[in-house]
Amino acid sequence: MTEHELVRELAEKNGSKIVMLVADGLGGLPMEPHGRTELETANTPNLDRLAGRGTSGLSVPVLPGITPGSGPGHLGLFGYDPLAFKIGRGALEATGIGFELGPHDVAARGNFCTLDSAGLISDRRAGRIPSEESFKVVERLQAVNIPGVETFVKPVKEHRFVVVFRGQGLDGGVADTDPQATGVTPLDPTPVTPAAQRTADIAKEFVRQARTILADEKKANGMVLRGFAAKPQLPSYLDLYGLRAAAIAVYPMYKGLAQLVGMTLVGKAQSLDEQIDELAKCWNDYDFFFLHFKYTDSTGEDGAFEQKVKRIEELDRAIPRIEKLGPDVLIVTGDHSTPSKLKSHSWHPVPTLLVADTCRPDGLEKFSERECLRGGFGQFPAKHLMLLAMAHALRFGKYGA
Amino acid sequence: MTEHELVRELAEKNGSKIVMLVADGLGGLPMEPHGRTELETANTPNLDRLAGRGTSGLSVPVLPGITPGSGPGHLGLFGYDPLAFKIGRGALEATGIGFELGPHDVAARGNFCTLDSAGLISDRRAGRIPSEESFKVVERLQAVNIPGVETFVKPVKEHRFVVVFRGQGLDGGVADTDPQATGVTPLDPTPVTPAAQRTADIAKEFVRQARTILADEKKANGMVLRGFAAKPQLPSYLDLYGLRAAAIAVYPMYKGLAQLVGMTLVGKAQSLDEQIDELAKCWNDYDFFFLHFKYTDSTGEDGAFEQKVKRIEELDRAIPRIEKLGPDVLIVTGDHSTPSKLKSHSWHPVPTLLVADTCRPDGLEKFSERECLRGGFGQFPAKHLMLLAMAHALRFGKYGA
Repeated sequence: MTEHELVRELAEKNGSKIVMLVADGLGGLPMEPHGRTELETANTPNLDRLAGRGTSGLSVPVLPGITPGSGPGHLGLFGYDPLAFKIGRGALEATGIGFELGPHDVAARGNFCTLDSAGLISDRRAGRIPSEESFKVVERLQAVNIPGVETFVKPVKEHRFVVVFRGQGLDGGVADTDPQATGVTPLDPTPVTPAAQRTADIAKEFVRQARTILADEKKANGMVLRGFAAKPQLPSYLDLYGLRAAAIAVYPMYKGLAQLVGMTLVGKAQSLDEQIDELAKCWNDYDFFFLHFKYTDSTGEDGAFEQKVKRIEELDRAIPRIEKLGPDVLIVTGDHSTPSKLKSHSWHPVPTLLVADTCRPDGLEKFSERECLRGGFGQFPAKHLMLLAMAHALRFGKYGA
Repeated sequence: MTEHELVRELAEKNGSKIVMLVADGLGGLPMEPHGRTELETANTPNLDRLAGRGTSGLSVPVLPGITPGSGPGHLGLFGYDPLAFKIGRGALEATGIGFELGPHDVAARGNFCTLDSAGLISDRRAGRIPSEESFKVVERLQAVNIPGVETFVKPVKEHRFVVVFRGQGLDGGVADTDPQATGVTPLDPTPVTPAAQRTADIAKEFVRQARTILADEKKANGMVLRGFAAKPQLPSYLDLYGLRAAAIAVYPMYKGLAQLVGMTLVGKAQSLDEQIDELAKCWNDYDFFFLHFKYTDSTGEDGAFEQKVKRIEELDRAIPRIEKLGPDVLIVTGDHSTPSKLKSHSWHPVPTLLVADTCRPDGLEKFSERECLRGGFGQFPAKHLMLLAMAHALRFGKYGA
């Protein structure tokens, strides 16, 4: 019996509310040996108080030593084994710009490139064309017309864009067209599985029409396509857990990830305070609330230790407003670590805290990497966090008699 | 290589003795935040002394957040993955009343119900008929006679009974006949797999004869059947571990679970003291001894915190008599937690202690949930406990050269 089969069998409904507050890239490192991490440096009276009342631990996003991107990081927290459920690169890129993929879509990442008069790639990034120029090029591509499919072309940033084909019988099994070199032509889209023949033909036709339309462009007169992928098949929160789930996020990527598991996007909050306003407003309409806080990650990526500390303190100050709503289960965690010292995502386990009346005390008095190491959840796979959330919300029946 | 294949490959025989003392529902919770659990409250000088000498940890019965019934809880402790080896409800009910299922049996749970003159269910529990009345009705059903199979009908409690069909080619794949409503007729037994056609026919004939026999009953003149199941296919202790295993339990459910893995039921003890008398008596005849202590669970289920504390203290006082027999490995654990606060089984990890001369000290001075969190076994799946038992009994060879 798989874990998801078990979840489906045991899930029950009641009126309980679960809040999962994800501080992106929460975990950190000291800048110097024997120093303190960002979380250990921050003044976090509210999180510390919650640690005293709840149960803490360290969540391992994928496996020890494995650094996740945002996709696998969040899939784990949502209870989907990130090694079993994969979001293809094209699908993730589309998701990241807020494009809601449908069940009949195949998305690919596109890079504009510069082709010389012989059709050979002379610049693989089209001179790193600025976004505003690139957006105009993307606009011209709206003229592409392929019978039998709808085609969406969306800008991302600089030379990057996304193309989505929508139609019956499409398949993500198409090879990248990027030859990873200059002085050669882009590759033709070719199927890697027989089922993708039609999709490869459509992609080829897309490239053909685009070449004609962009023939007069100086920089962006060609393109390569990569990471063809359909929308991943993820059971929804409602289907799996019986939870009506709301996502209250600011950035498109996290909204998109939440949508992939069937969460409803709520509000248009631009700050944590506004996110909690939205939370209060929709409190009666949902059972589960995913709140995403981006800035613990972005400050870490910038290597801005002190800024990350301040962002953690901002998060801490928001806690009492969430508590006042009276969630039955309140979780504070991250999708991965982003130590300022490394200026990037990392594999280090993520401090995680769960507060509910059913918590067994673990004697912690502070929320930090060091303390969580002694927490009652120990170190656990992120994909098990939702099992604990459901249990503490008393939403699981007994397994076997 | 599966874990069981590994066990079979490595298991060796020697004269060592393993005692596994299972305090049912041992783990608990404080009644108030920052309070103490039942085990932390109890005065347990013997268990604490053992914790100082052995290695402790917290066993996770199934998965984090998953609350097991007695079946999966014990299967885990016995070393059978409770998600891979399942005991069907009918088989568990038969087991629970001490009916020893054979390899050609299919068992189902029965509920007497009241049918009106049109054959529609008017009371799904036959007026919650008292056990003594129900037992007489069950007695009348002994007259059922179905060619080609033996039929056993056994009372459980109130309106509940068990029916077991014994014969060649039976299969548990028969749908429940309970329509879960009044004002309708019971459903006919129907096969959910083609292999169960004959079993469904037999069940139908059983119901037909029962209706005739019980036609004059005022309350229990009908029945519904649920949870059809054959005996689960579990490798025996002797086959798997090479252990001659004895079960010394008071209650039928635990005797039955032990029998499912091929343990021999020893004695007719009615108290822990008598169980240890039996243990001493059969000491030379077996290698492994499963002792089951029920009352830590039943007091927890009653929400009787103080009573559970007293039962734990009773358990503690029994320890020196067991030690005197000189087991090479002595394990104290539970099949799950039953916090008085929740008045039910729970998912919380279970305090577990193993004492052997080969233990690596972990610095604990007390046996409790909080201490076990810092124990040498950490948090571990219950199904791995038998691996540790075998290892510390020096009954495993080396894996690979």
